[in-house]
Amino acid sequence: MKMENPTPIQWQFSKRAQQLQSSVIREILKVTVRPEVISFAGGLPSPATFPVERMRAAYDAVLAREGKVALQYGPSDGYGPLREWIANSLSTGGAKILPEQVLMVSGSQQGLDLLAKVLIDEGSKVLVETPSYLGALQAFSVYQPEFVSVPTDDHGLLPDQVAGVAQGARLLYALPNFQNPTGRTLSVERRAALVETCARLGLPLIEDDPYGALSYRGEPLPKMLTMNPNGVIYMGSFSKVLTPGIRLGYVVAPLPLARKLEQAKQAADLHTAQLTQMVVHEVVKDGFLAEHIPTIRRLYADQCAAMLAALNEYFPSSVTWTRPEGGMFIWVTLPKHIDSMKLLDEAIAQNVAFVPGAPFYANAAEQNTMRLSFVTVPPEKIREGIAKLGKLIAAKI
Amino acid sequence: MKMENPTPIQWQFSKRAQQLQSSVIREILKVTVRPEVISFAGGLPSPATFPVERMRAAYDAVLAREGKVALQYGPSDGYGPLREWIANSLSTGGAKILPEQVLMVSGSQQGLDLLAKVLIDEGSKVLVETPSYLGALQAFSVYQPEFVSVPTDDHGLLPDQVAGVAQGARLLYALPNFQNPTGRTLSVERRAALVETCARLGLPLIEDDPYGALSYRGEPLPKMLTMNPNGVIYMGSFSKVLTPGIRLGYVVAPLPLARKLEQAKQAADLHTAQLTQMVVHEVVKDGFLAEHIPTIRRLYADQCAAMLAALNEYFPSSVTWTRPEGGMFIWVTLPKHIDSMKLLDEAIAQNVAFVPGAPFYANAAEQNTMRLSFVTVPPEKIREGIAKLGKLIAAKI
Repeated sequence: MKMENPTPIQWQFSKRAQQLQSSVIREILKVTVRPEVISFAGGLPSPATFPVERMRAAYDAVLAREGKVALQYGPSDGYGPLREWIANSLSTGGAKILPEQVLMVSGSQQGLDLLAKVLIDEGSKVLVETPSYLGALQAFSVYQPEFVSVPTDDHGLLPDQVAGVAQGARLLYALPNFQNPTGRTLSVERRAALVETCARLGLPLIEDDPYGALSYRGEPLPKMLTMNPNGVIYMGSFSKVLTPGIRLGYVVAPLPLARKLEQAKQAADLHTAQLTQMVVHEVVKDGFLAEHIPTIRRLYADQCAAMLAALNEYFPSSVTWTRPEGGMFIWVTLPKHIDSMKLLDEAIAQNVAFVPGAPFYANAAEQNTMRLSFVTVPPEKIREGIAKLGKLIAAKI
Repeated sequence: MKMENPTPIQWQFSKRAQQLQSSVIREILKVTVRPEVISFAGGLPSPATFPVERMRAAYDAVLAREGKVALQYGPSDGYGPLREWIANSLSTGGAKILPEQVLMVSGSQQGLDLLAKVLIDEGSKVLVETPSYLGALQAFSVYQPEFVSVPTDDHGLLPDQVAGVAQGARLLYALPNFQNPTGRTLSVERRAALVETCARLGLPLIEDDPYGALSYRGEPLPKMLTMNPNGVIYMGSFSKVLTPGIRLGYVVAPLPLARKLEQAKQAADLHTAQLTQMVVHEVVKDGFLAEHIPTIRRLYADQCAAMLAALNEYFPSSVTWTRPEGGMFIWVTLPKHIDSMKLLDEAIAQNVAFVPGAPFYANAAEQNTMRLSFVTVPPEKIREGIAKLGKLIAAKI
């Protein structure tokens, strides 16, 4: 029945597919899976923080109790009790978030894809931070927007720079807590100013917050969502506080947008796995995160301190870096003439890896930057890796 | 910190989002969840077929053995051992399918979305059956193609009608086994002719096959994939042979397309849950489906026979219907003057539901058609519901 020598197809991909390329980070990660490599390139949370036994017990309990429901098709907007739990936990500071505003998605990346699908036409202006999260740039790029990079400083995005470039923009995308890639945090005053500016301009503001709970000291800063629930689109995730491999996140949107996103979700994959949502609800409903998250914070704070100490000891004085108050990343700025993409080749030859900063810029890239993740490397390996990197950099100064 | 009276946003949705609407079927399903309704409207498999205990044991085993891997981020193309298992099980009839051709997706619906994303530009011509699967029409519509409906008869799509309309088309989408919505099966001769025609025209042929394993008698017909693995894109799913709520399917594509789909998958949601894939592999790897699927076939064959008998007994002689050899659906054609959308209102008033046929047509809809699912309703209720419908129809003749 098999055809003999059929003509091979000349594939004609859509214009948007021609924009698609594999993530630089994923390509680097493929190189760095060798066990001898000290990799600061990952964006993965530490598996040491995964509550495996707790998850295992929850899968067992949910399947024993409601197996046939958990394994059947479910609603496109998500599992009701989990949406309620999320809405309640976000209703702080006088803001009231409704369960109807919450759309469950298969990880934050899907939230980004659905938002872009629903809000971006070819050529639409999209405002992003300088630099911005690579996964967001990738998700948005598929829909062929025109990116405008809003200037930033050590305290994050500059709200007074928004109005001048916002004319006709479809959205502003910001990651205010321990930003990926810089580790920077947007100050409370700037949050208020940004929310106020966007509201005045009628500009949808996306607040992406995967790391918000991972503050090393004190309480997390107030969410922009709670300052204006009708103008801010909030994105949360269980990837960094529970486990990423289950792919579970959520988008909280004003109602007209939430309904449109639900339709897009239905066309995209009908719904996110019921079982996953029921299990996560089983795990979080009685306050487990309140005891679990502090253990992640302590681990990451220690790892971050170890890397900051090593940077201080081994990196030349002309190099600068951020000092994150939470999250998973440090951002390093090298002297202008050093191209971190070339440095990476030398580093990999010495079994050390990081992510060059250039791919995180939507427009003019600063080639002398790099992102370091400290969460999955033990402290003595952090010292060893940073020492090697410091030597390579010093040789160029 | 909450803003006082911010200006509400005037949402500007993308052109593609303006096309989006909620599925007619999902809206009907919302009406019919009342327990007193006899619903032939669902597309859900029978939960009686879910191997809950087997799944529960597999979750437990995988989490105990490889919990930290299962809960971590994974590769965008999917879990290697499962991709290998799928490639092997599809390598029949002399065809050799490579694991690299297999992309794991979060249910077939995501496969449809990714294929459309990668292959369809605004205005691209897309060939579909008459009628076609509603979920595919929905997924494709987002990317604003121009649909061309290829004529069909009782044995499915007419291959000799393809060449005349294929000029410039990006793909042909077909569901050859126990089609949703008609229950029709494409004959072996037509499969070969269709594969040959598409190969000659250089037209990508999508073979969507969620029900292929659910044949009531004898072995399933050969897959078009095996006739030309370099020209056919095959879509499979674990939803109908295991459980749908876990959201796990796969797309098998020629290598250049498979690579592009992997990039689209990465931008869309990074990857499908590792744990889900490892658990399904754990369940299927030792031949479980070979013992499990026959139990589903027997149940559905019996239910189908019950509905055919009831139709024969209660429906007027001017009504015709298909006699499926597998799958989950019967397609009914009423006399021309009866609009099934209006009939549905009357039926729901009598606590019986079905899906009107019109939404399954990409172009000129035949309003006098309806889809009946028999898999989740017990035989005595099938008789009762069909009797009520028959009476409503008879009153119009």
